[in-house]
Amino acid sequence: MKNSDKEKIESIIRIRKKAHTYFLKKSEVYRSFTDMEKKTFREGKLSILNKELIAAGISVVINCESCMEWHIRKALDEGATEDQIIEAIEVALEMSGGPGTVSARFAMSVLDFYRKKEKQ
Amino acid sequence: MKNSDKEKIESIIRIRKKAHTYFLKKSEVYRSFTDMEKKTFREGKLSILNKELIAAGISVVINCESCMEWHIRKALDEGATEDQIIEAIEVALEMSGGPGTVSARFAMSVLDFYRKKEKQ
Amino acid sequence: MKNSDKEKIESIIRIRKKAHTYFLKKSEVYRSFTDMEKKTFREGKLSILNKELIAAGISVVINCESCMEWHIRKALDEGATEDQIIEAIEVALEMSGGPGTVSARFAMSVLDFYRKKEKQ
Amino acid sequence: MKNSDKEKIESIIRIRKKAHTYFLKKSEVYRSFTDMEKKTFREGKLSILNKELIAAGISVVINCESCMEWHIRKALDEGATEDQIIEAIEVALEMSGGPGTVSARFAMSVLDFYRKKEKQ
Amino acid sequence: MKNSDKEKIESIIRIRKKAHTYFLKKSEVYRSFTDMEKKTFREGKLSILNKELIAAGISVVINCESCMEWHIRKALDEGATEDQIIEAIEVALEMSGGPGTVSARFAMSVLDFYRKKEKQ
Amino acid sequence: MKNSDKEKIESIIRIRKKAHTYFLKKSEVYRSFTDMEKKTFREGKLSILNKELIAAGISVVINCESCMEWHIRKALDEGATEDQIIEAIEVALEMSGGPGTVSARFAMSVLDFYRKKEKQ
Repeated sequence: MKNSDKEKIESIIRIRKKAHTYFLKKSEVYRSFTDMEKKTFREGKLSILNKELIAAGISVVINCESCMEWHIRKALDEGATEDQIIEAIEVALEMSGGPGTVSARFAMSVLDFYRKKEKQ
Repeated sequence: MKNSDKEKIESIIRIRKKAHTYFLKKSEVYRSFTDMEKKTFREGKLSILNKELIAAGISVVINCESCMEWHIRKALDEGATEDQIIEAIEVALEMSGGPGTVSARFAMSVLDFYRKKEKQ
Repeated sequence: MKNSDKEKIESIIRIRKKAHTYFLKKSEVYRSFTDMEKKTFREGKLSILNKELIAAGISVVINCESCMEWHIRKALDEGATEDQIIEAIEVALEMSGGPGTVSARFAMSVLDFYRKKEKQ
Repeated sequence: MKNSDKEKIESIIRIRKKAHTYFLKKSEVYRSFTDMEKKTFREGKLSILNKELIAAGISVVINCESCMEWHIRKALDEGATEDQIIEAIEVALEMSGGPGTVSARFAMSVLDFYRKKEKQ
Repeated sequence: MKNSDKEKIESIIRIRKKAHTYFLKKSEVYRSFTDMEKKTFREGKLSILNKELIAAGISVVINCESCMEWHIRKALDEGATEDQIIEAIEVALEMSGGPGTVSARFAMSVLDFYRKKEKQ
Repeated sequence: MKNSDKEKIESIIRIRKKAHTYFLKKSEVYRSFTDMEKKTFREGKLSILNKELIAAGISVVINCESCMEWHIRKALDEGATEDQIIEAIEVALEMSGGPGTVSARFAMSVLDFYRKKEKQ
């Protein structure tokens, strides 16, 4: 059985890396964005974990699959449990209804992808 | 020739089922959503068919491919003709312009997918 | 007590008229859009009422207040009852969650606005 | 000097209440939504505060003013400091760019509104 | 006759200024965003005018009124004619349909606002 | 190594053609849309190139991959350089933040796709 979400996740990771190199070289605006990114996701009055969960919730509502892959992974890196990520997804569900359930599926695939990687 | 939309539709159906089982078990918010869903798409002052066509139009405008697969299929189940579904798509086109034509293509693939299934 | 939605509705109607005249004169693309609009909302395999209800549902999901004013009014003109419009709003609620309840409020104000006008 | 955001906030609160009563009475789908809402925003593996901050971040990205009013207020009720709310807004800014700064202004007005109320 | 769009434009300008001061002081992420903004809208391989017209088109499609006020004004500052701005709006109309006509109205009000200011 | 974006681009082109034929035959609303399209993207007070760059910027912000493929290609046909297209993408980045970087990746793939084709 094909696992199309696994392929999608691997493709997201691969293309993100390639594009990151390209835009870092080509675009000062992009470099400025990466500065903004660093300043956003660092320890502050909110923990990095809490910020990544906010970002995960946003990613589900706007159905940005690459953002889900990124922010759910970062949340896991910060020690988030599966249940905590599900509760962040639930907030997003409440704020997007049916289409949110579609994004939530991909979020589940991301969770699954990193759980399996861990076990290897 | 590859039929990438056919594969996409089959993948949508497969992952939806898997995620449905997962979230039903894991999330009370999701279970509450399924209750809301049931209450929405039942016969009322509007027929189920009319409700599914509203949902199909919304799906095209927000370019939710999984929603298109679901609501167009349900509309077909309620007896919708191809022409009726095209008219629902037309309302969505008028309310989304060029990007709506992109969603409309997927809606066409969904129509095609279920027509072929019927003939089998 | 101030009724800010009533003012908003009256302002939408006034500015729409003014802009319609302006763009009809200035923009061939706009004139082409009005042709597309006419071809969309005419009797076909779906009734005008059904089309307007699809458009109303879309309007709620994308939170377009001017679209709600227009399509709910048109649906009322085609004989829609309050309950039918509420059911179209319900489909939109299921497909947008919390933010949809915000749009639904404006839809309610539009219903209220035209009910009061009728009684005068 | 007119404070148009203050008026807007008061209007949001007033119309939300009126619409809440209306839809509770009229729509079973809406009642089901309020159940989903309750199940989402209760203590779980994430605190209510963390959930409200996720919701606040989502509200900024989708520019839902009523959602900002609601979730920022709830976050304040849960003891959020101004700095914590700003950091939630920052996550939203990173995920929406220029248009996010527009929503952020309204979020600031909401903060201002409840700070002034507190002092009364 | 009330001109609600004129009031809205003046309110946008006033609140933007106030929020700009607030976030500049409070948020390093916001300061980083302003750096990104400066790097975006400067002469490059595209003129500032062309960039502002791209931004104006985006603003219409996402219906960001504050963005329209800002980027149409900047385009006018760079010497854009009314016809050029209308053609940028037309691209947006083609890419958003009916809801784009709603944004286009506000764009028209912005054009009107700055034309009247010029004459004073 | 798999090039999933190359496959996606080829699939977009193939399905667009098929759907274009289908909707031209089936939908008068679609035919009216193509008229609107033609009137939008012709030489006017703005060059076709400038209009295509506006459309490219919009496509990135709304993350419409098919729109990116179409309008970036058209911009290249009108003589756009890679740097000019990157600057259009930069405007979009400023107006969408992190999710815009995801769209920008696909825009890069489109640039890459047509550069390679040229060399053949």
